[in-house]
Amino acid sequence: MSELSVLRLKKNEERRLRAGHLWVFSNEVDGEKTPLKRFVPGEYVVVEDSRQQPLGLAYVNPESLICARLLSRDHRVAIDHAFLLKRLSRALHLREMLFAKPYYRLVYGESDGLPGLVIDRLGDVLVLQASTLGAERLQDPVMEVLDKLLSPRTLVLKNTSSLRQFEKLENYVRVLGAPLEGLVPIEENGAKFLVDPVGGQKTGWFFDHRQNRAVVAQLSKCQRVLDLFCYTGGWGVQAALGGAESVDCVDSSESALALAAENARLNGVGDRMGFIRQDVFEFLKQLRHKRHRYDLIVVDPPALIKRKKDVKAGVEAYHRLNQAAMQVLNPGGVLVSASCSYNLPRSTLHDILRTCSRHLDRHLVILGQGCQGPDHPVHPAIPETEYLKTFFCHLSMPL
Amino acid sequence: MSELSVLRLKKNEERRLRAGHLWVFSNEVDGEKTPLKRFVPGEYVVVEDSRQQPLGLAYVNPESLICARLLSRDHRVAIDHAFLLKRLSRALHLREMLFAKPYYRLVYGESDGLPGLVIDRLGDVLVLQASTLGAERLQDPVMEVLDKLLSPRTLVLKNTSSLRQFEKLENYVRVLGAPLEGLVPIEENGAKFLVDPVGGQKTGWFFDHRQNRAVVAQLSKCQRVLDLFCYTGGWGVQAALGGAESVDCVDSSESALALAAENARLNGVGDRMGFIRQDVFEFLKQLRHKRHRYDLIVVDPPALIKRKKDVKAGVEAYHRLNQAAMQVLNPGGVLVSASCSYNLPRSTLHDILRTCSRHLDRHLVILGQGCQGPDHPVHPAIPETEYLKTFFCHLSMPL
Repeated sequence: MSELSVLRLKKNEERRLRAGHLWVFSNEVDGEKTPLKRFVPGEYVVVEDSRQQPLGLAYVNPESLICARLLSRDHRVAIDHAFLLKRLSRALHLREMLFAKPYYRLVYGESDGLPGLVIDRLGDVLVLQASTLGAERLQDPVMEVLDKLLSPRTLVLKNTSSLRQFEKLENYVRVLGAPLEGLVPIEENGAKFLVDPVGGQKTGWFFDHRQNRAVVAQLSKCQRVLDLFCYTGGWGVQAALGGAESVDCVDSSESALALAAENARLNGVGDRMGFIRQDVFEFLKQLRHKRHRYDLIVVDPPALIKRKKDVKAGVEAYHRLNQAAMQVLNPGGVLVSASCSYNLPRSTLHDILRTCSRHLDRHLVILGQGCQGPDHPVHPAIPETEYLKTFFCHLSMPL
Repeated sequence: MSELSVLRLKKNEERRLRAGHLWVFSNEVDGEKTPLKRFVPGEYVVVEDSRQQPLGLAYVNPESLICARLLSRDHRVAIDHAFLLKRLSRALHLREMLFAKPYYRLVYGESDGLPGLVIDRLGDVLVLQASTLGAERLQDPVMEVLDKLLSPRTLVLKNTSSLRQFEKLENYVRVLGAPLEGLVPIEENGAKFLVDPVGGQKTGWFFDHRQNRAVVAQLSKCQRVLDLFCYTGGWGVQAALGGAESVDCVDSSESALALAAENARLNGVGDRMGFIRQDVFEFLKQLRHKRHRYDLIVVDPPALIKRKKDVKAGVEAYHRLNQAAMQVLNPGGVLVSASCSYNLPRSTLHDILRTCSRHLDRHLVILGQGCQGPDHPVHPAIPETEYLKTFFCHLSMPL
């Protein structure tokens, strides 16, 4: 094996890595000793602190603000078949401990020691998403290991993440192995769903809300439920299966609603579900004027804050949305408020819910809080691995 | 109804109340206009801001640092049977929505609009705990309402909270109605337990961990489980029912262990459970020397930080405890780390887990986080209502 190049950090810039993080930012590199432009995009390097102590082995992208991500603390390791087999087996073992059926996020990037790489398992279809150049380069050897480990029928490279632009990567979708014959069936909390990994959002299904949806199902018995930003019906169908009297699903996407309706029929709850194509903010406004109310409302918008610079406008949007939802909730009802925006801290969503309820003079209490499912494990030293928060709120008349 | 006295706040001291909190601290009172010493302990007052705008109706205790707690935002309301019936009915309605069986915290103080009062429902036995003078005064009329609402067989006044000293209240236990014939049976997540409301800790059973215990049961299949600070076996029995290969329960209390063993037999899992009377820190030290390991360890100590001044020593204790537990956990094992100390923020426990795992060179990821159950709802404007946190961690060999 050839000698690896060294990427040296400036003084004290090793602290984050020593605390457990895996990222190196370009301004932390000692550009005198090891100029970034000398590295080949995607090459493996030994990261050293300013005193030349090795910190581990990383892949490099000099074009990215996050110019290197550690793959291992052992700087002598080879990133070969054996290495990837170990990483993927470990990830698989954890999921098999957690879930009885093969429907889950199999690899969650940094938390599974494979920075920038996501793999979803939809039975015998695997969906890969690389958001970094280093992860893109790992795809082929990873797929070889996956073939040995799981013999998937089909592999979908769903390389459409918005993060790829920061790595100067083009977006593309590629289907390998057996062609997909229609949609892919999965199960979640006993409900069946059809997933479109090619045409759907992200990798096709949001496994991260699994447990939160189970809670909604438990709370839905005999309730009139509203599922906002319903996408393909993940919340709504499970609410209906939980015994909801009725479920109205709202989304602006025709194709998402069509699939939601199909998922409703698949679970035998189509007769209790309605599907409304409309802008959610507009829909809530009309509801208020009609004085129509629901008993349980799920507010699970797509990330309203995509970048740091959008925080102010995004917080306002979450505020308007949650307030509008509270206004059409029956007294004694439940508001399930979620956010997948990394840039919206849990404490900010908490404050939004508190201030909205005070403004409307409702007594709000938090029955519980949800986080992303265990197949999206959080690395405690990498705050960026934690993004999903859900509040289960009970609203009643003022005290 | 006679005119109520006014308790006036200093300028700007109404902000916390306006944001939703219910407490007035003695240093926030305008002592010139309304000297605290003039109030009769326990009397009802109208709380006003410095501009004489009424903020609500409160009970007062001039002896306490928290000298008043709002019972209502409506300063003209009478605290009578109808008022209490409304509050208790609302609390009951919420629990009946959440739980199929009558085993839960029925009233959780401030969050249910009854500051300082806790009521646990163990079937037809109700356990009340008043931690303030105002709540103590409410006990009799509350019990009248409870009689109408639930016709309990027995009421236990378990007035032994350590908070009572701050209100200059004596501790006592009183049993009203039918005498208790032995222990009280309850159910949690399908498991049966016997509870001792008179001789046990707090109100006898910790309903707050219900959901976290359900998660442990799901993770326990075929695992060797260690339940530290087991008390009467809440975690351990549910782990055994979840299919654990073996469960060792450790506690320093002989009576708690005896009841834990009885609870194990009651659920038919006594043959797979062991009970060890020992100091937990000492036990962990011996385990390490014997190189004995477990697959799943529950660390759920009593509050190691009771007051703010104990924070430093307490954080160190949580640190030692979690580190010692990690050292006897098999690679690929799960650590369930809980804290009920209000003075230990969730972020500090998070940091403790991160630093311990780095120190031991283990790869730790957080599979999920638990909070107190929905019968202990959190009031978003009253941080003091949120105290319980649980981390479900997966530990494996370093990356």
